[in-house]
Amino acid sequence: MEKLLCGVDLGGTKLSVGLISVDGRIHDKLTVYDHVGKNEIMIVDQIIRLIKQLISQNELSESDLRGIGIGFPGHVRYKDGHTLTTSNLKGFKNFPLRQAVAEHFMIPVLLDNDANAQAFCEYKFGAGKGYDTVIFLTISTGIGAGIILNNKLYRGITGTAGEFGHTIVNSDNNQICTCGNEGCLMACACGLALPYLFKKKTEQGIITTLPLPDDFNYSHVDGKMIMKGLEIDDPLSKAIIQECADYIGIAVYNIFQILNPPLIILGGGLTCWGETYLTRIRKKFHELARDMIFDKIEIVEAVAGGDAGLIGAAALLLE
Amino acid sequence: MEKLLCGVDLGGTKLSVGLISVDGRIHDKLTVYDHVGKNEIMIVDQIIRLIKQLISQNELSESDLRGIGIGFPGHVRYKDGHTLTTSNLKGFKNFPLRQAVAEHFMIPVLLDNDANAQAFCEYKFGAGKGYDTVIFLTISTGIGAGIILNNKLYRGITGTAGEFGHTIVNSDNNQICTCGNEGCLMACACGLALPYLFKKKTEQGIITTLPLPDDFNYSHVDGKMIMKGLEIDDPLSKAIIQECADYIGIAVYNIFQILNPPLIILGGGLTCWGETYLTRIRKKFHELARDMIFDKIEIVEAVAGGDAGLIGAAALLLE
Repeated sequence: MEKLLCGVDLGGTKLSVGLISVDGRIHDKLTVYDHVGKNEIMIVDQIIRLIKQLISQNELSESDLRGIGIGFPGHVRYKDGHTLTTSNLKGFKNFPLRQAVAEHFMIPVLLDNDANAQAFCEYKFGAGKGYDTVIFLTISTGIGAGIILNNKLYRGITGTAGEFGHTIVNSDNNQICTCGNEGCLMACACGLALPYLFKKKTEQGIITTLPLPDDFNYSHVDGKMIMKGLEIDDPLSKAIIQECADYIGIAVYNIFQILNPPLIILGGGLTCWGETYLTRIRKKFHELARDMIFDKIEIVEAVAGGDAGLIGAAALLLE
Repeated sequence: MEKLLCGVDLGGTKLSVGLISVDGRIHDKLTVYDHVGKNEIMIVDQIIRLIKQLISQNELSESDLRGIGIGFPGHVRYKDGHTLTTSNLKGFKNFPLRQAVAEHFMIPVLLDNDANAQAFCEYKFGAGKGYDTVIFLTISTGIGAGIILNNKLYRGITGTAGEFGHTIVNSDNNQICTCGNEGCLMACACGLALPYLFKKKTEQGIITTLPLPDDFNYSHVDGKMIMKGLEIDDPLSKAIIQECADYIGIAVYNIFQILNPPLIILGGGLTCWGETYLTRIRKKFHELARDMIFDKIEIVEAVAGGDAGLIGAAALLLE
């Protein structure tokens, strides 16, 4: 039997560890939620115990695994295997996560950003299969991305390349991002922007037909609520989806001009808005790109589901 | 003696052909201006004659050359060696320029975009020497760029990658670019934007101490005029330089977030604005990037002068 890959998807709400086959299928996995609020050392312990438990409950030994790939929700210094920053977990500032895990195993351990892992999953097993160059954008609460050029993840000097979410697309816009800047893509077009957009459009006089609870405040607005609005043809929800889609269309256009890829894959929670959203993104892109497109460029939805981060982290061992 | 490289820099005003040594020195060159207005066939003839003349006047034969590299002022389909579009010359829409030149020689012929050639010159012999990843921006009448990743030009699927000039940085801005879009970097921060900026700032009440001719109209405003304004401490000229620098600072920040390179090189005519301009670009970049910089990134001026396109075109043979 070909060796299995071990993937670790360390998220802000969920910690999953899985055994993944080289063709991207999940052999077994364990998921916990009680890592939230713990410090780095305790989380490392938890990861090690989960990996050992998986090995044992599958009657395997460590040598049946090719290695361990870890996806981390934040900046990573790739070469050193250090985490740099994260908004989703406590601590992990300059923390040697790869080394802390590797000390407990004989097999190779890799650490990368979670969006890179998801991108690699799509490239290897999902919508990017067969392409050698793929740009992946994940649009959820925030916006992450991964750049695959000529069959390799492009990481840059530190390992933080691909932060399209932080690129400025509207320098006159005063919507503020968690990074502190105004007018970057994340400030304009992800889950974090929805409360602001709901307020702005309400103040512009756009009505909503969504039933709002008595204790409603704008911070309740999220992607699912806007999805419900879309289902009942709510004018305000549709206006928000259009504005978000137009900004993603601009980002897709910028990616096209900079990297000239054959394929851009869109994933993440807000793609639940479906064809209305995707069609509008493509429309905005084509309005901007017009006669500057010389070769076919596809803008498609991600196909790997909620386990993309887990499978991708494992797949990093195949890079 | 090591074989020489032949470079061809086909520009909108100037056509240069040169023999270049493998260490980037010009052995001999010929420059003409009378290609302007000629059609593709006539320009190809002229290029061939100039190359043959250079070979002959240096008492060389074709076999003393390693090949011919051509830099073209517009989009190029790299793999086919076709030109796609240009704003600087008549015709050249889908024209097989590489093949048209190659038919007359036994040595290899390469064709690339002129900004890629300049970028490669800086990487090989200029400010990028010793780096393996370099982003080069040239800011003149328009804005071009070249991306060198891991010692290779990154061209994308067609060969048109690196068009940072066309990325949208201010989607609420209605300054219009030659491409037809509003709010792209070229619309906001290159020579083409100067007449608009001069008018806008005059209307905002900023005074100019520049002596304006009786027949002055805004189309006269160019980089040299603003440079004169800077020399006499003209408030309007300084305001224009600041605005342009801030947009380039945003572009540099976006490049940093997307490609995480160790070095960004700025070249082109508007860098004549000097330290005032470069310092403001760096300031804007650092205001945006702040604590998101984890490894040193240098933002430096190009060192290769007006022959960067010629030397770079030749140097493509060393890629």
